[in-house]
Amino acid sequence: MAPKLTTVEHLKYSKRVVLKSIVGRDDGGVGLAGERVVVGGWVKSCTDKAEPVVAVADVTYPEVLMSRIPILGSIARILGGRKSVPVVKAEGGQSRTVSFVAWLRINDGSCVASLQVVAESSLYPLEQITHVGTSVLVEGVIVKIPAPKKHSIELKAEKILHVGSMNIETYPLRKSRLSLDTVRSYPHLRPRASMGASVARIRNSLFNATHLFFQSNGFLHVHMPIITTMSSRADAKMFQVSTLLNKLVDIEKTDEKNDKEDINIEVVKDAIKEKSARIEELKRTDSNKEALIGALQDLQKAHELALQLEEKQQSKALSVMDKILDFSKDFFLRRAYLSTSPELHLESYACALSSVYTFGPTFEADKDVKAAKNLAERWTIDVALAFAELEDAMNCAEDCLKFLCHKFLESCPDDLILMSKRVDNNCTDRLKSVCSRPFPRITYTEALDFLKKADDGKFDAQAEWGISLSREHESYLADVFFKQPVIIYEYPKEIKPFYVREADNEKTVSAFDIIAPKVGVLVQGSQKEERLKKITTRLEETGLSMEQYEWYLDIRRHGTVKHSGFSLAFENLVMFVTGIDNVKDVIPFPRTRGSAGV
Amino acid sequence: MAPKLTTVEHLKYSKRVVLKSIVGRDDGGVGLAGERVVVGGWVKSCTDKAEPVVAVADVTYPEVLMSRIPILGSIARILGGRKSVPVVKAEGGQSRTVSFVAWLRINDGSCVASLQVVAESSLYPLEQITHVGTSVLVEGVIVKIPAPKKHSIELKAEKILHVGSMNIETYPLRKSRLSLDTVRSYPHLRPRASMGASVARIRNSLFNATHLFFQSNGFLHVHMPIITTMSSRADAKMFQVSTLLNKLVDIEKTDEKNDKEDINIEVVKDAIKEKSARIEELKRTDSNKEALIGALQDLQKAHELALQLEEKQQSKALSVMDKILDFSKDFFLRRAYLSTSPELHLESYACALSSVYTFGPTFEADKDVKAAKNLAERWTIDVALAFAELEDAMNCAEDCLKFLCHKFLESCPDDLILMSKRVDNNCTDRLKSVCSRPFPRITYTEALDFLKKADDGKFDAQAEWGISLSREHESYLADVFFKQPVIIYEYPKEIKPFYVREADNEKTVSAFDIIAPKVGVLVQGSQKEERLKKITTRLEETGLSMEQYEWYLDIRRHGTVKHSGFSLAFENLVMFVTGIDNVKDVIPFPRTRGSAGV
Repeated sequence: MAPKLTTVEHLKYSKRVVLKSIVGRDDGGVGLAGERVVVGGWVKSCTDKAEPVVAVADVTYPEVLMSRIPILGSIARILGGRKSVPVVKAEGGQSRTVSFVAWLRINDGSCVASLQVVAESSLYPLEQITHVGTSVLVEGVIVKIPAPKKHSIELKAEKILHVGSMNIETYPLRKSRLSLDTVRSYPHLRPRASMGASVARIRNSLFNATHLFFQSNGFLHVHMPIITTMSSRADAKMFQVSTLLNKLVDIEKTDEKNDKEDINIEVVKDAIKEKSARIEELKRTDSNKEALIGALQDLQKAHELALQLEEKQQSKALSVMDKILDFSKDFFLRRAYLSTSPELHLESYACALSSVYTFGPTFEADKDVKAAKNLAERWTIDVALAFAELEDAMNCAEDCLKFLCHKFLESCPDDLILMSKRVDNNCTDRLKSVCSRPFPRITYTEALDFLKKADDGKFDAQAEWGISLSREHESYLADVFFKQPVIIYEYPKEIKPFYVREADNEKTVSAFDIIAPKVGVLVQGSQKEERLKKITTRLEETGLSMEQYEWYLDIRRHGTVKHSGFSLAFENLVMFVTGIDNVKDVIPFPRTRGSAGV
Repeated sequence: MAPKLTTVEHLKYSKRVVLKSIVGRDDGGVGLAGERVVVGGWVKSCTDKAEPVVAVADVTYPEVLMSRIPILGSIARILGGRKSVPVVKAEGGQSRTVSFVAWLRINDGSCVASLQVVAESSLYPLEQITHVGTSVLVEGVIVKIPAPKKHSIELKAEKILHVGSMNIETYPLRKSRLSLDTVRSYPHLRPRASMGASVARIRNSLFNATHLFFQSNGFLHVHMPIITTMSSRADAKMFQVSTLLNKLVDIEKTDEKNDKEDINIEVVKDAIKEKSARIEELKRTDSNKEALIGALQDLQKAHELALQLEEKQQSKALSVMDKILDFSKDFFLRRAYLSTSPELHLESYACALSSVYTFGPTFEADKDVKAAKNLAERWTIDVALAFAELEDAMNCAEDCLKFLCHKFLESCPDDLILMSKRVDNNCTDRLKSVCSRPFPRITYTEALDFLKKADDGKFDAQAEWGISLSREHESYLADVFFKQPVIIYEYPKEIKPFYVREADNEKTVSAFDIIAPKVGVLVQGSQKEERLKKITTRLEETGLSMEQYEWYLDIRRHGTVKHSGFSLAFENLVMFVTGIDNVKDVIPFPRTRGSAGV
């Protein structure tokens, strides 16, 4: 046995060894040969090449024998079926008992690689542990594979401590290799698939690198509010947060109960019809005037009752309506929404603590059918810097992106290989080029010049000064022309929010976007308007309610400073680094128009 | 001049030096004397002891002189008022010009300490920079104070690069020392106050330490959904997320417009009254029967019109009601809520990736008046561990708390001193005792024994088996009896959720709480029920909709594993480490019943 190079790392909060610390080692785990460990995981695949062997004392690993004595393969198929094979156990070179063996590849999500576990049927009924998806907790010894192919080691199981079996009929992820499309419908099982697990690890790596970058650069993380009474954009794209709708359902239930006790209006209406017909008949037959008067008075009473009932019902409906519309009775005593951006609130912290960031969820209810693939809930990194101008924010955003890509390359090499193989073989190059070259910086006006020069009718819409760049314009600049992320700055003021700082020319504002290949806008940033007069004028021009911005203007009234910031769309970043096209595949539980299940 | 020990750290994304790297140094910044720097910040106070001096060539610092020549103080008051004083500048010992000087203490939020800036009136009109709250960007030279008191260095300003002046009439935080009560109403200005800034830094420190703990222990951070269709608890305590209410407002607006074109029902009703009165008169005067019939028929028509109008109005109201109640037309095509806990979703990731955590917002709409001080939006750390039992989760939660307290002690000593002085002089001891001693672990049954022994009528309610411990019981155990955090485990199953693992005795479940002095429940955790049959039975007993839990049961159907987890209430942790009593003071923008403004 090889000398132990190191010992395994035992997990602190689970009585097992994490697979990454075995198969994720540079030596593939060879240095751990001879170690007794407990491992846990889910079966990713079970070998099909199971073969029988006559084990002899000094050679216990069937694959070696099989490769030497091919005839045994046929015997195996006859004796043991596909998943498990008989092994003639040997002691001192002599055959003793017959046993079946399974080679399970298990994964615990800690890394891309799986560990091969060799389990004999004497330990556990093999048919219960060989299905893809089964969980096992196994004690065994790490052994070196004498003639390694894909793996250098395997685990010889000695005890099966726990098995979580499978309902194979209902399990949707039976196959060992699953496409993103297949697993998308099962977000709760998706991390069991290699791609799902890999995306989770990549998100974690980028998440962790984000905090590392900002914390080491002196930024403070601040939690920003999710519920807000500010409706900065059109209400139409905001989710309303309310407890009134629950109350409404209660009212409905009470009403249903009460309704049963009421005189039914339909009965009264039927009576009116009947009485009206009777009157018509009396008139037609020109009968006794007294009878007609009596009938008319009868009808009058019925009418009065009907009106009373209608009024009662309607006032009930209206009172319910009032209760719903009366947001002064809602939980926050006014209308409240899910925040579409933390940036205004974050500014107030920057204008006190200088350098702050937040990593939180933002919400957009885009009801446009074309937007059905957009996420209603996404994560963004928002950054705000006091005593900082446009260039500072651009530098910070560029450095941040470079740092994240660099850390990702460093910490997830195996996940990157998986993405290259399965999604986009260009993603490593894309990442490396981000890290190695400065991002070109061009003004919006220069960007238009590039687009005009390029436009030999290739764009659906021509780029025009004063109009936002379209997705195809962005794509041309980042994917075709520069072939790397590009910073565009100094935009016409009409296409940027009121709080972006106006230039002396009064036409442009100090905004910038970072446009990246594949995904388009990754970062949106700006230097904020710090001058009270200017920002008040621009706010008035928007027609937004001034009252709700009073607190925001306070920051300009009291010790205003030049400050800047940006917002990085986290899911776009994950798409950028992995090459994955569908945004639903890069977030654990996607919420889109019509879909918030699971 | 002292030899330079180090040079200042220049900020990467702001053309200034952060104050922490000057006054936050162990030497108080003395090693940086002679360095020319640009600093920015907000004026915290402006000295009141301003005094005039006759400067001589080798002594340029007025305070020194003042302490030697007390008479100058009186002269200062006569010549220069309170905030600025005349200085007779000298060269070669000879008086030359008269100038005013202000000693500003500025802070940029990076640390508790402020930097004293000495500014002469020749640089900038002093009355514009001396108000508390003014922002300044100053270039100057760091100089050692010859006879240091509180500070060892100050900055001799040479250029005032930017000033953000004050609207002193409307600024609510004029005083230099502000109580938590005063600043609570101004969450956007709160970080300008020492306590507000300190809480922000403490939150950041704990936030960062959380990620450090979990990342270094092999946990992956996973973003959990905020919007959910699961209504795990009573709907009544959940916020509903909807876009229907926006639609409703649109409908109302359209209706208002349409209403103007309609015949007014009130006019018709008046006509009915009039006609009815006419009929009564006709009957009383016993006049012509034809006239009575005519009047009755006239009334009939008015009645019919009234009924028609009522019906039309009502159907309009009902159709609006239908639209509101028709959640199948809402954004997610069904009712959706803000998540009260990520724990079920997180389990699905643990049962694939083994060790996961999430740091996210959770929401509770508690409409109880007594709960008005509760946060509707709070942050929690949720942890899930596969192949882990109750004890593993308890160990992990205890280690996590200890690590967070330890890191906090290490990284925020000055903030801790501030808290000790201003809030709770016991907080350092409380933190140290957390780090140094293991938490006692007692079962719920043992906890009851302690409480029963203690109860000489001191509790409002007696502790009884099968009922949750009250706040006073928890307080007795943590504050009085153990005087440290205590872990209580093995609870009666009735008082814990259906997904907590049932013991063999079928009476208790594998749940635990960590109860801490001052704040009560800090952590709630459990081993989850991994057995499909058991969890299905318990779910059925709750009466909750089975359909919405199908995906959750999948985790037990397919490769189930023993797994555990816990949830740490972040705001409670901040209250625990700082001693702050009011939860609104430990979160940047608190949302409570009736309050989501700013």
